[in-house]
Amino acid sequence: MLRRYVHITPMTIDKFINERSADVLEELCAFLRIPSISTSPDHNDDCRAAARWVADHLKSVGCERVELLANDTHPVVWAEGPTVPGKPTILVYGHYDVQPPDPLELWDSPPFEPTVRDGNLFARGATDDKGQVFAIVKAFEAVMGTGRPPVNVRFLVEGQEESGGEVLTELLQRDPERVAADAVLVADMPYYAPGWPAIYTALRGMCYCDITVRTLEGDLHSGLYGGVAPNAHETLVGILAGLKSSNGRIRIPGLYDMVQRPPKVERDAWKRLPFNERRYMKTEVGAKALTGLTQYPPLERTWALPTLEIHGISGGFTAPGAKTVIPAVAGAKVSLRLVPNQKAKKVETLLRRRVKELAPSYAHVSVDFIHGADPVLADVTAPPFDRIRQAFREVEGREAVPIRSGGSIPIVPALGVKKAPVILTGIGLPDDRLHAPNEKISLEQFWKGVRVFGRFFQLMGE
Amino acid sequence: MLRRYVHITPMTIDKFINERSADVLEELCAFLRIPSISTSPDHNDDCRAAARWVADHLKSVGCERVELLANDTHPVVWAEGPTVPGKPTILVYGHYDVQPPDPLELWDSPPFEPTVRDGNLFARGATDDKGQVFAIVKAFEAVMGTGRPPVNVRFLVEGQEESGGEVLTELLQRDPERVAADAVLVADMPYYAPGWPAIYTALRGMCYCDITVRTLEGDLHSGLYGGVAPNAHETLVGILAGLKSSNGRIRIPGLYDMVQRPPKVERDAWKRLPFNERRYMKTEVGAKALTGLTQYPPLERTWALPTLEIHGISGGFTAPGAKTVIPAVAGAKVSLRLVPNQKAKKVETLLRRRVKELAPSYAHVSVDFIHGADPVLADVTAPPFDRIRQAFREVEGREAVPIRSGGSIPIVPALGVKKAPVILTGIGLPDDRLHAPNEKISLEQFWKGVRVFGRFFQLMGE
Repeated sequence: MLRRYVHITPMTIDKFINERSADVLEELCAFLRIPSISTSPDHNDDCRAAARWVADHLKSVGCERVELLANDTHPVVWAEGPTVPGKPTILVYGHYDVQPPDPLELWDSPPFEPTVRDGNLFARGATDDKGQVFAIVKAFEAVMGTGRPPVNVRFLVEGQEESGGEVLTELLQRDPERVAADAVLVADMPYYAPGWPAIYTALRGMCYCDITVRTLEGDLHSGLYGGVAPNAHETLVGILAGLKSSNGRIRIPGLYDMVQRPPKVERDAWKRLPFNERRYMKTEVGAKALTGLTQYPPLERTWALPTLEIHGISGGFTAPGAKTVIPAVAGAKVSLRLVPNQKAKKVETLLRRRVKELAPSYAHVSVDFIHGADPVLADVTAPPFDRIRQAFREVEGREAVPIRSGGSIPIVPALGVKKAPVILTGIGLPDDRLHAPNEKISLEQFWKGVRVFGRFFQLMGE
Repeated sequence: MLRRYVHITPMTIDKFINERSADVLEELCAFLRIPSISTSPDHNDDCRAAARWVADHLKSVGCERVELLANDTHPVVWAEGPTVPGKPTILVYGHYDVQPPDPLELWDSPPFEPTVRDGNLFARGATDDKGQVFAIVKAFEAVMGTGRPPVNVRFLVEGQEESGGEVLTELLQRDPERVAADAVLVADMPYYAPGWPAIYTALRGMCYCDITVRTLEGDLHSGLYGGVAPNAHETLVGILAGLKSSNGRIRIPGLYDMVQRPPKVERDAWKRLPFNERRYMKTEVGAKALTGLTQYPPLERTWALPTLEIHGISGGFTAPGAKTVIPAVAGAKVSLRLVPNQKAKKVETLLRRRVKELAPSYAHVSVDFIHGADPVLADVTAPPFDRIRQAFREVEGREAVPIRSGGSIPIVPALGVKKAPVILTGIGLPDDRLHAPNEKISLEQFWKGVRVFGRFFQLMGE
């Protein structure tokens, strides 16, 4: 009885790959050819086309109910496989939209003409996220066997991940039953290194704000008023300089009170990861020194400590040549990455308070919240994590390492409806150049993905 | 014998004005209609046309030798009146080029269609400098009388004052005899206030630099590298914050050593000028406080103390929305206004040294000198100053006040060939809006200018 639903073996997945690999690659290329750039309204038709493509494809591989939800320009694809009574439900999350491909001249082959070179498939979206979500779809197809998968599978493939759309969050809140699951699979992440699969135990959150300073009714001429007129850039520079010490500590009172340091066992595991600090600094970061809170190791600084960055400063005169303006208005884009247990809204309040405290009384200073995301901390002791670890062990021959990501995926907290564990993993590689020219996916990794996710479905059904 | 060359009386100037005022206004409007914007190559033809207009006009009012010098696109107009043996020579400096008129939509009448409203003539260049230099030309015409002026007069009217052209400086160095004079008259300045004519005893100098910081080989994503990657804007902000204290003191070692404070008698004279600090702050500066070295009075801060301004900061991401880039490169435009005895080249060296001192070792920081000007200090005890003061006294009924300008006119030091005293004055008003929309000249001031400069020519010939 126990193995009743295990109607397919690991061998079956290999057979699927052996027989169908050329077709699968052609299908993936068709998906990648659609320039579904969600940040540009010029590509709304392409986004709709990509959504329809995904919906049609899910139907063709055996999904019984397929719907386009939420909005007309960037519909969310929702689909459900055949009902398998008594078996758990997996919700697969992915996105069909991609980043803009600029600067085009840095691509070695056109971003929307998928091209294979040296075992890699180059295209915008190859790894983020079309290639990864397609590996899961093919895994589902591979384990369908006699027309019935080993578990209940639901797909949720959205089209505004790259453009910060909040339509999906609203959908999840409005209709939680539609996405209820025993586990959520999000495969939008890379391995730690080639040969080193990773399960992500946490993501950093985000608090992104615009700081605007006004010191004068209008710009003035420095010949006439230099010496008496408050300069908006000088005021802004004073405020920004007051937000961080030269030793990398963020000077926002209360900010570190909320920080929950990773347990020692987790930090010890990170120390065993292959990591060459000198090579990381020189070839990956491209700097002469690593900065920040240098009393902590680099991986802890990027994965588990908050940071504050200035992204740009506007106002005044920045064209070539000389103009002797005293600027009336200056603006800075600033964001903080947040770690468990910080909350975006609370950090916004602390930042706002600190900026006001640093601002001289003659300046009008405003802090505008642009967007935010709470950090994510996964309880990787939940049973579905054992299944994905086993799948990686079988396919890769190595234990998946528990690591974190310094980035943010704002949708993740909302995906875990009714406390369903959210598995953050993926089959990308660190050099996949997502968001950059020459984005690619390793074909070897893609096929590993079909195996790993197929095995995960099987193991969840046992 | 003493009065032999005084062949014309103050009454004659008034007669000229009474009889010719309509024609003169029409001539000035013709000059103002030429859009001789020197900062835009699209207007090279207009600049040539303006130069020819000035040359033809000077010939028509009695100049015997008129030449276009130096270059083809923005020629310098050089002209000489009839030789008057035994009399001193006055060199008149002015410029026919104007600032761009943008933003056009803020003009109440088109910038190159001169329009009279409420006793003011509105047009780009009305006060800076076409209207002012034209008042001197008409003064010259008024005192020509029987065809011979009371003194030798030379005109030098250039076309690259607003675009920082250095052609005139080279010309002055190459051919100093052509511009040799007993006094130089520069009428490019405003009264201290309506009814308060001014003789400028000093101008501030200028040291304008671009500071560029590079911390990374390329921009990075703050999700991946926030916490270890040095942020170019953070480094730049640290440097800029280190250049000035919050109390307004410039923190460049050695900078104040060179400052020569104005003599007490001069500072005492400033205290007697009408000056309402509160109104100045609110309506003129448009700020909630006056900043800088507040232990010194505002006029001393703008006229006789150095200042450092940030004009703009470039690099990174400044468009609407959120992009989580760690910028690799950041640039700031910074300038210092200099006072007697500071030298632009020396200040550049001090600034460069200080910036390097403030820069962390991992950052590549460069300081590029964009342009500079040494400050000017006039010896207003030289005899020609008595003549211009007398002219103002007679025409305005009030003593011209000895004040300074916080601005810079880079050509001024070069004009005083063989130590000829340079008289910096003018008949503009502080609200003439030079470089801004709705630039104007008061017609009453213009006619006062014809009288004052005419009397100056006469008095110099006595």
